[in-house]
Amino acid sequence: MKVIVLGGVAAGTKAAAKLMREDRENEVIILNKGENISYAGCGLPYYVGNVIPEKEQLIVNTPQKFEKLTGAKVLVRTEATKVDREGKTVTAVDLETGEETVYHYDKLVIATGASPVIPPVEGRELQNVFTMRTPEDAIRIKDLAVNGGIKKAVVVGAGYIGLELAENLAAEGIRPFVVDMAPQILPGFDSEVSDYLERRIADAGIPVVTGVKVTALEGDGKVEKVITDKRAYKADMVVFCAGIRPNTEFLEGTGIEMFKGTIITDSQGRTNDKDIYGAGDCAMVRNAITGKPAWSPMGSTANISGRLIAQNITGEERLYRGVLGTAVCKLPGLNAGRTGLTEAQAIEEGFDAASVIAVVDDKAHYMPGASYFIIKMIADKKTLRLLGVQAVGSGAVDKIVDMAVTAIMCKADLNDLADMDLAYAPPFSTAIHPFVHTLNILLNKLNGGLKSMTPAEYAKGMAEGYKLVDAGQVPSVPGAMHVELTEVNGPVEGLDKNDHILLVCNRGKRAYLLQNRLDYYGYKHTKVLEGGITFTEAEGL
Amino acid sequence: MKVIVLGGVAAGTKAAAKLMREDRENEVIILNKGENISYAGCGLPYYVGNVIPEKEQLIVNTPQKFEKLTGAKVLVRTEATKVDREGKTVTAVDLETGEETVYHYDKLVIATGASPVIPPVEGRELQNVFTMRTPEDAIRIKDLAVNGGIKKAVVVGAGYIGLELAENLAAEGIRPFVVDMAPQILPGFDSEVSDYLERRIADAGIPVVTGVKVTALEGDGKVEKVITDKRAYKADMVVFCAGIRPNTEFLEGTGIEMFKGTIITDSQGRTNDKDIYGAGDCAMVRNAITGKPAWSPMGSTANISGRLIAQNITGEERLYRGVLGTAVCKLPGLNAGRTGLTEAQAIEEGFDAASVIAVVDDKAHYMPGASYFIIKMIADKKTLRLLGVQAVGSGAVDKIVDMAVTAIMCKADLNDLADMDLAYAPPFSTAIHPFVHTLNILLNKLNGGLKSMTPAEYAKGMAEGYKLVDAGQVPSVPGAMHVELTEVNGPVEGLDKNDHILLVCNRGKRAYLLQNRLDYYGYKHTKVLEGGITFTEAEGL
Repeated sequence: MKVIVLGGVAAGTKAAAKLMREDRENEVIILNKGENISYAGCGLPYYVGNVIPEKEQLIVNTPQKFEKLTGAKVLVRTEATKVDREGKTVTAVDLETGEETVYHYDKLVIATGASPVIPPVEGRELQNVFTMRTPEDAIRIKDLAVNGGIKKAVVVGAGYIGLELAENLAAEGIRPFVVDMAPQILPGFDSEVSDYLERRIADAGIPVVTGVKVTALEGDGKVEKVITDKRAYKADMVVFCAGIRPNTEFLEGTGIEMFKGTIITDSQGRTNDKDIYGAGDCAMVRNAITGKPAWSPMGSTANISGRLIAQNITGEERLYRGVLGTAVCKLPGLNAGRTGLTEAQAIEEGFDAASVIAVVDDKAHYMPGASYFIIKMIADKKTLRLLGVQAVGSGAVDKIVDMAVTAIMCKADLNDLADMDLAYAPPFSTAIHPFVHTLNILLNKLNGGLKSMTPAEYAKGMAEGYKLVDAGQVPSVPGAMHVELTEVNGPVEGLDKNDHILLVCNRGKRAYLLQNRLDYYGYKHTKVLEGGITFTEAEGL
Repeated sequence: MKVIVLGGVAAGTKAAAKLMREDRENEVIILNKGENISYAGCGLPYYVGNVIPEKEQLIVNTPQKFEKLTGAKVLVRTEATKVDREGKTVTAVDLETGEETVYHYDKLVIATGASPVIPPVEGRELQNVFTMRTPEDAIRIKDLAVNGGIKKAVVVGAGYIGLELAENLAAEGIRPFVVDMAPQILPGFDSEVSDYLERRIADAGIPVVTGVKVTALEGDGKVEKVITDKRAYKADMVVFCAGIRPNTEFLEGTGIEMFKGTIITDSQGRTNDKDIYGAGDCAMVRNAITGKPAWSPMGSTANISGRLIAQNITGEERLYRGVLGTAVCKLPGLNAGRTGLTEAQAIEEGFDAASVIAVVDDKAHYMPGASYFIIKMIADKKTLRLLGVQAVGSGAVDKIVDMAVTAIMCKADLNDLADMDLAYAPPFSTAIHPFVHTLNILLNKLNGGLKSMTPAEYAKGMAEGYKLVDAGQVPSVPGAMHVELTEVNGPVEGLDKNDHILLVCNRGKRAYLLQNRLDYYGYKHTKVLEGGITFTEAEGL
């Protein structure tokens, strides 16, 4: 069988290698537009920050090495320009010579990836304006960062790559400033979690401004200023990490089904043409919870799809249930990870969503380096099915996320997960695992044992008319009445049983214990502020 | 309702606090034999090694603080001596005054824990001979370690606590030596994994000898020598971490069902008396896979059981599915974790067990600190159900274990887990997650794509008659024929197609690729050594 693979970074090389392993009779040819195949796209920011010192480390395999290892053939600097579905051919042009060649295929795998978008603003052609997508991009940025006398950089785009790049530019001694058009950073997080992250990142020396649109770049040869619809920012370097666009223009008119330029595939990775497959950043997969089409331009998805397509092509039927929008990111001073539906997405999808924000120890509190996770957990009220998790903290948020992924893919409900015998030893975790601790709080909330206000509700002004009560061990909420939990053995002077009372403490735990007592003594309208003042920083808190 | 709780460390305090939160009308009294309640038993080794500097940090709650926080009553130095099931009373003695008191209960929770076992050898009463169970034990050991001029310590018992203690004694500048009667360290691991761990621990300066029984201690006042059935060891200090025995003697004759001194409980935590519950180290729970009784004297199990019992007592019916024998341990130079059934246990339980040992990157190979996991994964051949995981490495083995726990509790099979959208970014993981990477290798093995020999099979001599072929990038197996994978494009000179050939490389990957080619060229009897020379250190390898 002759298989043409268009694109040779993650999905393409994975598919090609697996196809050759499955049957060495296969003839597999990769046509790759760029010079490099199989590079570490997700590692690029870390090359800029010199966490990865050598550029050679970014290249997993050269074309020569890959050919020798797998038996597949690789043509670089070769761009596919046309697909003829009836004739089952691909036309490609050699970018060195301009020569066109027509390749016959039995099966075609399209894994052409995506390209960075630079908005069409004036000054975009100035020197020291970059995108951040390929090893060449990263090499140019690092070179300038190290040798160019750069002091200030504006990163456009506060997604994962933008923030990782900002952190790594800071590591080179450059002051980064991040701007984003969107109302929040990191679109995969609910907005109150994004807001929290934005504050923490700013504390760590990386200011971010959201809701700001770049309108022009100015400078004399080199970029000097970024003009936005709000104000202007000085910059010796500008990097656009503001989105990518699938490389699928050459498919226009082929009848291959697309959605916003992205190839639609079924659960075997096939397009509407049974001999053409799509994988990686140019293709659409499905959301594993909703079943709806989802775009997941991630190295992990590319690898899973590439492997699975090879298996399907060689007749081993395998189905891809799809993605959960999982992501994890090392941010300045803390890590953030997420999977599944956000609360906002869950509501939009018609779930009767319940959520909680918990602040829980990440390992035994007496161990050095112990800190806390902030975990937002989202479940369906009726079925108790786990829908999503967002986790933030200096520790192993990836563990919390990976447990949630496993649970969601197994369609677990909260009760399935409450009595898990998870790994505990003081250097790693707590006797009640932070994942389960959060889940218990959510169950308490759902069965009425905890009556709480979420940080999002608080931010929306739902605490208006509430008396603020500080349940902390030591008073720390300005203007609040402090109540010492352990001394409440009856009605509390100054609090009426019909008062609406918001109980606030450091994390939410003492407030919960106080609510428990106040309930017993007949207080009817108390709420605990979830996550306490650790999560919510507001006037009076 | 009046609830008497016997024991106030983990399960007892958890149950008492939850009972009071569920209904403050409850009258809850904890009777605790020792001076301290609610201490960090799992943290004790880290206090010895000064990772936890202050002894106060070991105590989570004093009786006074606990009473004020929860409303439960705590009596310390008060030992239960008799239970009258008909009269529903407990008799307890005040260890200070010798006075006996009879307490009535509506519900009784037995959480009396377990005590360390010192084998009845001569010399056990010598100075500087300890057990390691309570804060007092740890304080005495640390005091001697810091101030006693101690040079050599023998730790008896190579379980989790024994090895953690050995590491922490080494941190105090003491040369530890660990002996164990059992044929292997860490009984929760399959023996080849234990053997690997034993070698690594010895490399890190902590020699362990297994299969050795202590027969006497010798010394003049202070211990000086440990006599075993093999040889004698000099020692200025001896610590017995050689097992514990449930504190249930006082239940003799009550008719409460026990197994080897351990209270048998149902999935609600109840004994055969519907008003008496058992939790923590003195009680038996169930194995969540086999449904058979299992003893799990762990802080995590105690907390889960304590909470669940409180819920059941107050009428909220909750079932405990049981434990998986999960454990994780920081060892010198590396971490080790496990859950579910070992391969040996799985076979014993009648499963048609398949297993694989994989050596896989723990994060992107180009990141600083990147290393590898050794993961043993066990599944049922017929149903592909995941049965157990053992993970070793310098990285986050707890993540691998917790994912496995989640999967096993959801009764997942390997196909349910193969396409999971797990968290990937270079500082945290690999594009194909190490858990899934291992799982893919096991699936390859099960579907015949990989034909391998396990390290255990190799150790048993199953490679006899095999030609050893080194598939490494550079030759590194003495006496083996080196074959350069990328140059195999037909039959290999010196290898007959009917030869039995064992393919060995660093981790197993290149050997697998070579096998793939040799298959194609008609070689009929090749095997890949799983885990390569990274896992197996043997003559000629």
